[in-house]
Amino acid sequence: MKRKKIVVMGGGTGTFTVLSGLKYHPVDLSAVVTIADNGGSTGVLRDELGVLPPGDIRQCLVALSAGDDVLRNLFNYRFHEGSLSGHNFGNLFLSALEKVSGGPLSAIREAHRILNVRGRVIPVSARATNLFAELEDGKVIEGEHAIDEPDGDRASIRRCFLSPPVSANPEAITAIEEADIVVLGPGDLFTSLIPVLLVEGIPQALANTKAKRLFILNLVTKYGQTESYTARMFCEAIAHAIAPAPLDVVLANTDVPPPEILARYEKARERVVEDDLVGTPYRVLRVPLLSDDFHEAPVGDPIRRSLLRHDPAKLAQAILGAVV
Amino acid sequence: MKRKKIVVMGGGTGTFTVLSGLKYHPVDLSAVVTIADNGGSTGVLRDELGVLPPGDIRQCLVALSAGDDVLRNLFNYRFHEGSLSGHNFGNLFLSALEKVSGGPLSAIREAHRILNVRGRVIPVSARATNLFAELEDGKVIEGEHAIDEPDGDRASIRRCFLSPPVSANPEAITAIEEADIVVLGPGDLFTSLIPVLLVEGIPQALANTKAKRLFILNLVTKYGQTESYTARMFCEAIAHAIAPAPLDVVLANTDVPPPEILARYEKARERVVEDDLVGTPYRVLRVPLLSDDFHEAPVGDPIRRSLLRHDPAKLAQAILGAVV
Repeated sequence: MKRKKIVVMGGGTGTFTVLSGLKYHPVDLSAVVTIADNGGSTGVLRDELGVLPPGDIRQCLVALSAGDDVLRNLFNYRFHEGSLSGHNFGNLFLSALEKVSGGPLSAIREAHRILNVRGRVIPVSARATNLFAELEDGKVIEGEHAIDEPDGDRASIRRCFLSPPVSANPEAITAIEEADIVVLGPGDLFTSLIPVLLVEGIPQALANTKAKRLFILNLVTKYGQTESYTARMFCEAIAHAIAPAPLDVVLANTDVPPPEILARYEKARERVVEDDLVGTPYRVLRVPLLSDDFHEAPVGDPIRRSLLRHDPAKLAQAILGAVV
Repeated sequence: MKRKKIVVMGGGTGTFTVLSGLKYHPVDLSAVVTIADNGGSTGVLRDELGVLPPGDIRQCLVALSAGDDVLRNLFNYRFHEGSLSGHNFGNLFLSALEKVSGGPLSAIREAHRILNVRGRVIPVSARATNLFAELEDGKVIEGEHAIDEPDGDRASIRRCFLSPPVSANPEAITAIEEADIVVLGPGDLFTSLIPVLLVEGIPQALANTKAKRLFILNLVTKYGQTESYTARMFCEAIAHAIAPAPLDVVLANTDVPPPEILARYEKARERVVEDDLVGTPYRVLRVPLLSDDFHEAPVGDPIRRSLLRHDPAKLAQAILGAVV
């Protein structure tokens, strides 16, 4: 039987989680990854060296690496002393590799080999670009990092755009068009998912494909980005971004997080996404998807990480079940 | 027939050259490498991260790597933009690996695997230390880097010492004791060769071994270090450093460099080492050993590199011929 071709689109922790679960299944796996990040170590490297933002690509490579733990730990290692403080080693690796191998695509190809990657990690474009958010009050925020900064005082986001506009990496187009399943999310709506979908040629590829388009609904809202969002609003934002392609399936978690975790989110003005999808046109699959491993931010990592996460194995089962 | 066991001792370009030549021969090859470097990228990393100085170890790993060119180029890549400027990627690699693998020796072991190293690179000690030079006027200079800085106004070096004193890595002792040939040099006498020989236990291992002890005489003098040295003075310094072990063979070049290259050295107050070894107790092998590839310093590399080098293939032939 032919292996199912699955394309996972996005970046960040959510995409890492999906890939980590799916990689144990006999599927043909590709990740189509954002290139609009400009924060932290990645931001410094793209500014100073002119490389493709390495952070999201690196995370996906590590997720799919069949290399040993030392190599994977090495790629996730973050310096936290001296002048290198905050730099992630894997980011430095991809940046140096881009310099010696002549370009980002050949660098990523080499990295697949060195990390023994099962599957493919495909930057959505071979050119870096910047994300802008236009707010309801007309103000424009520049940069994924600034948009991602928690700021409850600002107006909500009306729309996002990329500048300069960039066109899709042909390899991303082909992967989407030939897929059996395209998985969107989970991930930060405006800073991980939308930036991928804004790349020229991506919505058309999503319209051309015979694949089921599946959106994994976020577990929690995000302060300053999707603070007042319900499930329906998340789905509408995705459906709008991929139009004219339809959103075929929505995967929603039914597990209820422990109260002490919810209280911590409450303090950060974030809460579990309310499922108001009854009566919407989406085919909704409701499944227990929560991980019972509540992560803390790793030492030396300047970026906030979430405590509530999807369980990789449950996610993978649900994704595969959604399209049989 | 059993493979000959060859141990090459030192660091820097000279040791890289010897290893690069010997690796094409069916021998059991080990490099015992200095851990007293404190200059450039290596100096920053040992200061800020507390790692074993990676520079010389990295050069030897690359010399013996059977990996492809991309991987070798990557390990030699030096950033020359932004805040990473001057850092060598391979040095960052070894430093991060030391952090995730729990120590310098396990990091180097992992690096062997990742770089597919044929042979072994052994730090002479598992602890970093500092080199000091006491001058004829009583002044003491601290740090390999400061000693290495060209300074023709200072008095000549009377003796060097390590502080703190460090004891030899047992793996280095074993390699030396079991060797058939121990190759010393070529390399900067006071900043690459002597620091290895000053490590506690190394002279004794050199005395215990049944190996031939072979010194590859430097091609040129070094301004501020060995400015007035003749071949005899180089050999005496080495013989003194390895005492009570004897120096068995000296390999001296007979090729005459082109006049325009000599003129460039003359300007830097350096010249070809004069062969005044007739009548000395050393067994001297005189062979044409010069490379006709006159290197320029690579872009972005803050360290001066020599134009006159030994030819790796000729060196290897001469070394193997010296002990048949």
